[in-house]
Amino acid sequence: MDERIKKQLAFSLEIDKEKNVFRQTHLSGHGRRENDAEHAWHMAIMAWLLREYANEEVDITKVMLMWLIHDIVEIDAGDTYAYDEEGLKTQKAIEDAAKERIFSLLPDDQKKELTGLFDEFEEYRSAESRFAHAMDNLQPLLLNNSNGGSDWKEHGVSSRTVYGRQKKTRLGSEKLFEVSDQIIQDNIKKGSLPE
Amino acid sequence: MDERIKKQLAFSLEIDKEKNVFRQTHLSGHGRRENDAEHAWHMAIMAWLLREYANEEVDITKVMLMWLIHDIVEIDAGDTYAYDEEGLKTQKAIEDAAKERIFSLLPDDQKKELTGLFDEFEEYRSAESRFAHAMDNLQPLLLNNSNGGSDWKEHGVSSRTVYGRQKKTRLGSEKLFEVSDQIIQDNIKKGSLPE
Repeated sequence: MDERIKKQLAFSLEIDKEKNVFRQTHLSGHGRRENDAEHAWHMAIMAWLLREYANEEVDITKVMLMWLIHDIVEIDAGDTYAYDEEGLKTQKAIEDAAKERIFSLLPDDQKKELTGLFDEFEEYRSAESRFAHAMDNLQPLLLNNSNGGSDWKEHGVSSRTVYGRQKKTRLGSEKLFEVSDQIIQDNIKKGSLPE
Repeated sequence: MDERIKKQLAFSLEIDKEKNVFRQTHLSGHGRRENDAEHAWHMAIMAWLLREYANEEVDITKVMLMWLIHDIVEIDAGDTYAYDEEGLKTQKAIEDAAKERIFSLLPDDQKKELTGLFDEFEEYRSAESRFAHAMDNLQPLLLNNSNGGSDWKEHGVSSRTVYGRQKKTRLGSEKLFEVSDQIIQDNIKKGSLPE
């Protein structure tokens, strides 16, 4: 087996570990917590389905790939809950080291391409990254709404905090912002999300 | 919320159930069984990484999307083990009904596009579907090899059966066929796979 494909397979095997990184969001039907790999799968499909609502024209392959690879760094760094402000401060340094370690398993050209895409996503510096982030807010909202807001209750999250995060949805998609807003307002009315 | 986006979100929520369909393959590190959603995620990334080895030129977005949506029908049909010959006979009728039920949640144009892609994959009738199938054999091989062939042992599978399935790898990628062959031969030598 030549060196190039050996590296590609070593990376493919390493990322299998992402299936063991669990998020705070629970699956629909009051299921177990969601893992990063299945979350990424869900996001990539939703990005494709909802691409017509992006504010700007997007290269959908790029958006899907951004999602598919985004959480690979959490193999080393673990998942940080979106509303854990302390955790979010230290998260970046650990993720940077993880990015270097894991993507270095790949041939140089693929390492460069995927880390470039990872950084682009983080920095909101393209239409694709802004649209990809819009999905990041909507998908957990969809699952949590289906479970009567149980994730918010568990973490004592208020509507103010949820809205803080939703601002970024608007950068990628006005339409998905409106939809999210409607779901949040419904949950406030039902008492599932304290104001 | 308008009807179109309501349908798209209903479908997005429904497919969450795919995370509860478990396969026979175990995760690396002698982990738990793999579920369909994280499997699809793994396949989509591997397809992108290894696209240079496709026998024919492929539209990689199409290949990735084929993988991402392929196991949705197993929400109703469940997973059938690749070497379960009896199960494979009845699988198709159940999957056809599941395909109709689940994709009908979508707006008509998206239902048509995704079921078309699903059928194309099943029928090996394009370069993309042939390449997508090549991945279908390699990924479980990679995980099973990392676990010393424990999935084959559990099911009493012989190298003849494994090679039977590998023929299809060749249709999509000669290179990935060679790589698979080398992994299978290594396992025969090590006694992990009986001849």
